[in-house]
Amino acid sequence: MRKVYNFSAGPAMVAEEVLQQAQAEMLDWQGTGMSIMEVSHRGSEFKQIVEQTEADLRELMNIPNNYQVLFLAGGATTQFAMVPLNLLGTQKKADYIDTGIWSQKAIAEAKRYGDVRVAAQLDESGKLLRIPSQSVWSLRDDAAYVHYTPNETIGGVEFHWIPQTGHVPLVADMSSTILSRPIDVSAFGIIYAGAQKNIGQAGITLVIIRDDLIQESLPGTPTLYKYQVQAENKSFYNTPPTYSWYIAGLTFAWIKRLGGLEALSQRNQRKAQKLYDAIDNSDGFYTNPVDPECRSWMNVPFNLKTDDLTALFLEDAKKAGLTNLKGHKLAGGVRASIYNAMPEEGVDALVEFMREFARKS
Amino acid sequence: MRKVYNFSAGPAMVAEEVLQQAQAEMLDWQGTGMSIMEVSHRGSEFKQIVEQTEADLRELMNIPNNYQVLFLAGGATTQFAMVPLNLLGTQKKADYIDTGIWSQKAIAEAKRYGDVRVAAQLDESGKLLRIPSQSVWSLRDDAAYVHYTPNETIGGVEFHWIPQTGHVPLVADMSSTILSRPIDVSAFGIIYAGAQKNIGQAGITLVIIRDDLIQESLPGTPTLYKYQVQAENKSFYNTPPTYSWYIAGLTFAWIKRLGGLEALSQRNQRKAQKLYDAIDNSDGFYTNPVDPECRSWMNVPFNLKTDDLTALFLEDAKKAGLTNLKGHKLAGGVRASIYNAMPEEGVDALVEFMREFARKS
Repeated sequence: MRKVYNFSAGPAMVAEEVLQQAQAEMLDWQGTGMSIMEVSHRGSEFKQIVEQTEADLRELMNIPNNYQVLFLAGGATTQFAMVPLNLLGTQKKADYIDTGIWSQKAIAEAKRYGDVRVAAQLDESGKLLRIPSQSVWSLRDDAAYVHYTPNETIGGVEFHWIPQTGHVPLVADMSSTILSRPIDVSAFGIIYAGAQKNIGQAGITLVIIRDDLIQESLPGTPTLYKYQVQAENKSFYNTPPTYSWYIAGLTFAWIKRLGGLEALSQRNQRKAQKLYDAIDNSDGFYTNPVDPECRSWMNVPFNLKTDDLTALFLEDAKKAGLTNLKGHKLAGGVRASIYNAMPEEGVDALVEFMREFARKS
Repeated sequence: MRKVYNFSAGPAMVAEEVLQQAQAEMLDWQGTGMSIMEVSHRGSEFKQIVEQTEADLRELMNIPNNYQVLFLAGGATTQFAMVPLNLLGTQKKADYIDTGIWSQKAIAEAKRYGDVRVAAQLDESGKLLRIPSQSVWSLRDDAAYVHYTPNETIGGVEFHWIPQTGHVPLVADMSSTILSRPIDVSAFGIIYAGAQKNIGQAGITLVIIRDDLIQESLPGTPTLYKYQVQAENKSFYNTPPTYSWYIAGLTFAWIKRLGGLEALSQRNQRKAQKLYDAIDNSDGFYTNPVDPECRSWMNVPFNLKTDDLTALFLEDAKKAGLTNLKGHKLAGGVRASIYNAMPEEGVDALVEFMREFARKS
């Protein structure tokens, strides 16, 4: 059993079973006498991992055959450039939805490559933060794509619906929500996700891309940033992050054993609900700034009345084995990240701690 | 003790002590109750690793203060683009030395960004492959930099001297030779190295760069490809590959315990000499195509007389626990990669196997 529950926003908890298997196999993968860290990406051992990993992911997410699955080095930030470099084509136009800091980073990078317009922004006019409904978005019919961030890790704002963009491909940065619930992959042109939240170890990014979007990139695009090259080479143009890929595979197998995304989805929703209930039933001792319709299942930020109280909360929580609860430096306050690997007992322990802390304060 | 000796060219053997420590700490790093894979890159735990890793590397390589040490996501192939994108500046000229396949890949990528000239090529005119002496190179005085590949992993060709390029910065792809011996870092403008040979796990690249070369990049350079951004953010512009960084740190600490680069250098030279002696003393049963003056200490390719004999050699070797000896698909034959983590006993076992195989054939 875990000594601590780690609420880090990422790199974040990895499932205990995954770590245990990685530990057991560290010096001898399946009787080979070698660590998977030590074998060639082109050898038979790693080939098994690649095939099983993709098969498991396709099954879990029900990925249609006209989508490629890529595992690329680096984090989701690589995609902030790769998406415009590969998709802007001759149109040179893209629409972005701005719901927080990660959206804004994607927008800033894309603006360097074309005519990027913010088609909608987080509504901060009311008492609670809200994602504006699509009826008020100003999407361009001739945009090369629409980009959005289904879950904002810092703000704790999440889409519980999928935008409808018609013939314009929808691109989603799912870093902090991928695999948390079933989604309809066919509604997207590209889904990408850094691994350090729901997939495993930092340094690898999953890209699920529809075949027709694998196209000519802008001149000057570094070779490794070309989806075409990566897809033609099945992510093997150069040596990929093999051990990170292996950890992703162990995670996908663990999710399958848990019952897949439907089962996880129920667990995740329950975990989030417990935390929001603890906040909402605290008589204002804890507050969350987000409209209940778009509260995140993965990142639950909340505030206490004073900075001193927040500091004391964080200190006492750490002593109680509840770590990394400090909010992002741009947001302050407290943030509990409760990705797939956070067991329900971890959330229960936090809820209990929150009640007790409020009671004695 | 190892059940097999793994001669893979990369990803390659990792020191047994490193794997054992990673295994022991997998679920609980230094009493924190967390894996290092699970902690924030901005937290106090990882900060310790970052500081110790850089301090150890600076000590091992005697890196002067006017050089920055970066750990970037991806492999050395990222640098094939980053070097020209960041260094070509207004001159737009660079000279490259072509000593094999990895040089050629670097050249092909650089040609996309400027006036790239091959100043010298591997001499294939004699019986044995030779690196031409610098007296016959045609270097341009106004080039932005000179790029070379000190060790060619596929060809098994290595520089045992450092080119003198005067005021023109020297850039070296040291992926397969870094940390194999002491070098004078001050002779270089940039040293870069993918990690999967002498540093640890694939997916991270070490870049050692002189301060004055951290400069304005070409327009359109992706943000993550800018040395300026990476240096200003100490490789933390986005989430770096934290676990790979940790494995690198364990490796540097292991090298320090072994006695540093001078001690390793002696061991590496001895290992290589044993293998070349076994080849040269085989009465032509095994042959190596490289002039003794530029034979690699790290990758020892050799040929047998027929393809059938080669196949039998590889098959029997594998049965004897000597794995991944197949030459690169572009070169054929046999290749023994004997990086730092290959123990001398592994080389002894291979030499003994080679003698026995030749005797009974």
